[in-house]
Amino acid sequence: MCRWLAYRGAPIRASELMLHPEHSIVAQSLDSPMGAETVNGDGFGFGWYAAGDGRGAPGMFHSVEPAWHDQNLRDLAEAVRSPLFFCHVRAAAGPPIQQTNCHPFRHESWLFMHNGTVAEFGQLKRELVMAVDPDLYPHIQGTTDSEVVFFLALTLGLRTDPVAAMSRAVGLVEATGREHGVAFPWQGTVAVTDGSTIWAFRYSSQGRSRSLFHSTDIATLHQWYPDAERLKLFSDDAHVVVSEPLNDLPGAFVEVPEATVAVLDATGYHHEPFRPA
Amino acid sequence: MCRWLAYRGAPIRASELMLHPEHSIVAQSLDSPMGAETVNGDGFGFGWYAAGDGRGAPGMFHSVEPAWHDQNLRDLAEAVRSPLFFCHVRAAAGPPIQQTNCHPFRHESWLFMHNGTVAEFGQLKRELVMAVDPDLYPHIQGTTDSEVVFFLALTLGLRTDPVAAMSRAVGLVEATGREHGVAFPWQGTVAVTDGSTIWAFRYSSQGRSRSLFHSTDIATLHQWYPDAERLKLFSDDAHVVVSEPLNDLPGAFVEVPEATVAVLDATGYHHEPFRPA
Amino acid sequence: MCRWLAYRGAPIRASELMLHPEHSIVAQSLDSPMGAETVNGDGFGFGWYAAGDGRGAPGMFHSVEPAWHDQNLRDLAEAVRSPLFFCHVRAAAGPPIQQTNCHPFRHESWLFMHNGTVAEFGQLKRELVMAVDPDLYPHIQGTTDSEVVFFLALTLGLRTDPVAAMSRAVGLVEATGREHGVAFPWQGTVAVTDGSTIWAFRYSSQGRSRSLFHSTDIATLHQWYPDAERLKLFSDDAHVVVSEPLNDLPGAFVEVPEATVAVLDATGYHHEPFRPA
Amino acid sequence: MCRWLAYRGAPIRASELMLHPEHSIVAQSLDSPMGAETVNGDGFGFGWYAAGDGRGAPGMFHSVEPAWHDQNLRDLAEAVRSPLFFCHVRAAAGPPIQQTNCHPFRHESWLFMHNGTVAEFGQLKRELVMAVDPDLYPHIQGTTDSEVVFFLALTLGLRTDPVAAMSRAVGLVEATGREHGVAFPWQGTVAVTDGSTIWAFRYSSQGRSRSLFHSTDIATLHQWYPDAERLKLFSDDAHVVVSEPLNDLPGAFVEVPEATVAVLDATGYHHEPFRPA
Repeated sequence: MCRWLAYRGAPIRASELMLHPEHSIVAQSLDSPMGAETVNGDGFGFGWYAAGDGRGAPGMFHSVEPAWHDQNLRDLAEAVRSPLFFCHVRAAAGPPIQQTNCHPFRHESWLFMHNGTVAEFGQLKRELVMAVDPDLYPHIQGTTDSEVVFFLALTLGLRTDPVAAMSRAVGLVEATGREHGVAFPWQGTVAVTDGSTIWAFRYSSQGRSRSLFHSTDIATLHQWYPDAERLKLFSDDAHVVVSEPLNDLPGAFVEVPEATVAVLDATGYHHEPFRPA
Repeated sequence: MCRWLAYRGAPIRASELMLHPEHSIVAQSLDSPMGAETVNGDGFGFGWYAAGDGRGAPGMFHSVEPAWHDQNLRDLAEAVRSPLFFCHVRAAAGPPIQQTNCHPFRHESWLFMHNGTVAEFGQLKRELVMAVDPDLYPHIQGTTDSEVVFFLALTLGLRTDPVAAMSRAVGLVEATGREHGVAFPWQGTVAVTDGSTIWAFRYSSQGRSRSLFHSTDIATLHQWYPDAERLKLFSDDAHVVVSEPLNDLPGAFVEVPEATVAVLDATGYHHEPFRPA
Repeated sequence: MCRWLAYRGAPIRASELMLHPEHSIVAQSLDSPMGAETVNGDGFGFGWYAAGDGRGAPGMFHSVEPAWHDQNLRDLAEAVRSPLFFCHVRAAAGPPIQQTNCHPFRHESWLFMHNGTVAEFGQLKRELVMAVDPDLYPHIQGTTDSEVVFFLALTLGLRTDPVAAMSRAVGLVEATGREHGVAFPWQGTVAVTDGSTIWAFRYSSQGRSRSLFHSTDIATLHQWYPDAERLKLFSDDAHVVVSEPLNDLPGAFVEVPEATVAVLDATGYHHEPFRPA
Repeated sequence: MCRWLAYRGAPIRASELMLHPEHSIVAQSLDSPMGAETVNGDGFGFGWYAAGDGRGAPGMFHSVEPAWHDQNLRDLAEAVRSPLFFCHVRAAAGPPIQQTNCHPFRHESWLFMHNGTVAEFGQLKRELVMAVDPDLYPHIQGTTDSEVVFFLALTLGLRTDPVAAMSRAVGLVEATGREHGVAFPWQGTVAVTDGSTIWAFRYSSQGRSRSLFHSTDIATLHQWYPDAERLKLFSDDAHVVVSEPLNDLPGAFVEVPEATVAVLDATGYHHEPFRPA
């Protein structure tokens, strides 16, 4: 239902990933070759950490104007240099289209974004919201399934063990859905960060998840494409996880397998199996 | 925290009350002489019933642009002629400022708007939301205390006995608040309509409610002010309930007493005491 | 670059053409099968005349939120019944995306909307704007080529002879363009109305104009499709001119020829050749 | 008609001036003690230069949502650290309220903002716009008098001699106004920067200009108020020029005289007389 991108590496100008690539996230807002929907025009979000800020709260920009012509977004993407940022374009199932329904969602120093859906959310919403920690509950600001799952993950330990917490949160969605007779309650890819590590989850109850890719090692790409000018923008430790490839360079992006959590941290990229609790 | 206006009578152009009076509701958005806040610049709403439509669902326009210069609002107010309409300007305690937080709120053919507050709403919200009928729960779209009280009233019988339902809803707010140690849980004036009758409530736990006025009988005003040109716009059965007088004409508006429900229907204006259940 | 629709006939609920058809103008905002662009997501406009109002100034609503999920737009389209209205979805060449760049444009009781472009407008703009009547000049509010052509047409006699004025305006665009070495200065379809007659122009310097269709006579359609429920909504004198067919019913829409002005008035639909002066 | 602030010094978090002071520019948007209007709710703008970027193009954010509750604005002000930035809240004479009418205006690496008015601008606009360099003309995006004066100044040499160019631009406004019988054509304060030096002009044809202040030397303030915690945020070379004092600290702000240009550069603050050419 959406498209997203998460970057980790040496600080770069956000526009190098958000605006300038052939299939940049902003280009995908108008035309997403691999998306469940072609147009992702129901809101944009950008969350970024300052260089050197450690786990401080990230900056955030949300807009419901068409991303492809949003002047604030273009200016901001050119002005911000960051070592870790998320961006997201939304294709909503329906209204309300509002800033509080734009991803990424933020709580303290954490960011969360999602491409996918809780099936039959209208039926399940009340039960899932009730499972949110009452102290966290008043911080829910929008109406999306995604934000509720973020707050479930926070309730279930995101801040101490993100993979286990996401496993419990998705498990709770599946259990609740099945109680209501929903065959495939969860669909999607999720990115979560504390400002230092990025965890990216690809999982769906049906085993047919939305697309997810990670970038090939920059050192490898330099060897393969010694003349590629744009590659010189990126540090050796630069990594991207993204809903679909940002360009048509063969080998530049590799699919993240089904039922997997991909991790980007100071040691680089690795992944492991993911299963709901 | 807000200002509102409710009209019932022969169909008139909405601009005659929303834009043209000296202290029109749009003028009050920038400068409200009697408001708890001078500026009510956090969103505007207009809900109107079509002439002859009976209890059909009302039209609705919500905007968070500054009301005093909103071109859509001006055009709409000039274009719409209606026998019953609500409008509201909001002064929010805080973000999010979004259309789904603008009054009036609508459910089926009903409209609801509020000037006031549930004290310490952050503490009480979860408990109050849990008291909403689970079938109605997914229809809550914003984050305000006011919308939750509307859904509580719907849960507690608004569609069959509006006065009793509001009495139960405010009673529930007061009971819940007091359990949490809140001295004065409810404050405000509320207008509710089914498209035919308007009920306007003025009540606060502390007995110091936001201001509320109703218009003097037009026939009486014609006698008092035979030369007043603007009065000729209004039918003999035209009535307004409003947060504060729309003009400085002595006697044109009369205060609605504390702890009162004012009723506008085909028989004219009357009021009776209101007390939470 | 855009898609538009103009209706004339007995008053109907605007949603019957804007929202409910298979390829309604709102559906075309997200997916236009015949458009130069698939997505027309850069603003929406709706201008309507009141039943019985003669040539009074039309109501107007402009928005830059995504049309396909705009709640205000949906509510307004359901609430307004009108005997003559225009609506338009925009695909902009670039920013700024703002309400003052949304069609239709209005001056006094006239409406104007356009699908197309003045080629190399940046080069020609100053000269064209200078040709606008100085008394009209301060009323230009946006930055589009379309609005400038509207003001040129007003300058050149739109209010007394619309076809001659449009012929002079397009002729001036072509002459100015050619002086600057632009091979094909004008492209597009235009609709203009005074609230009573609709004139729709299809012309491009290159002879390859954007698509334009008019609806087949309702009486004929009733004969062809006696069981079509939706057709019963429309009066015998109902006519639509539209960028592309609103449904897939064979024969329901007929192409307006190149270099033509189509006219809808009390006598029905007819067309004649159009040539720039 | 507006309020503005310009900062130059060591990089600071923009929120320290935009959000946190007692009479911050955002606080002034809702309540400006010394403004010609109390409410400046018709748009917000923020333009900032990156640390170490020299004269690169500044970042920019414009919004027409109420500044006092705009979440994007708050987030951005907390996230941006800058050695030179402008911010502005607008009180418009009328619509359109749109981002392209928000100050500061930008051209290449220059920023410009204005508090005041060209009297009878509707009458003078065409003549003034015609005096803009035809190559610059297509870059005008909004409808304000202020933006036209910026483009006149660019036309008349802003990039080589800002004081002389502003003198010529204001002189042209005055000459044009007087030809049209306007007694006092120019009113206001203006700030201009190339990213290194700030020039702030206070001048009106009537000799009764909008208020303007500059901050007292930080070293002096440290001596006067050794215990003031907030002062420690500011470097010794930090300077602000602002429509009105940001706090009530006696002596912290000093009025800029009538008919004066104040200059902030690497040598600190100084001012000299300003007279239109």
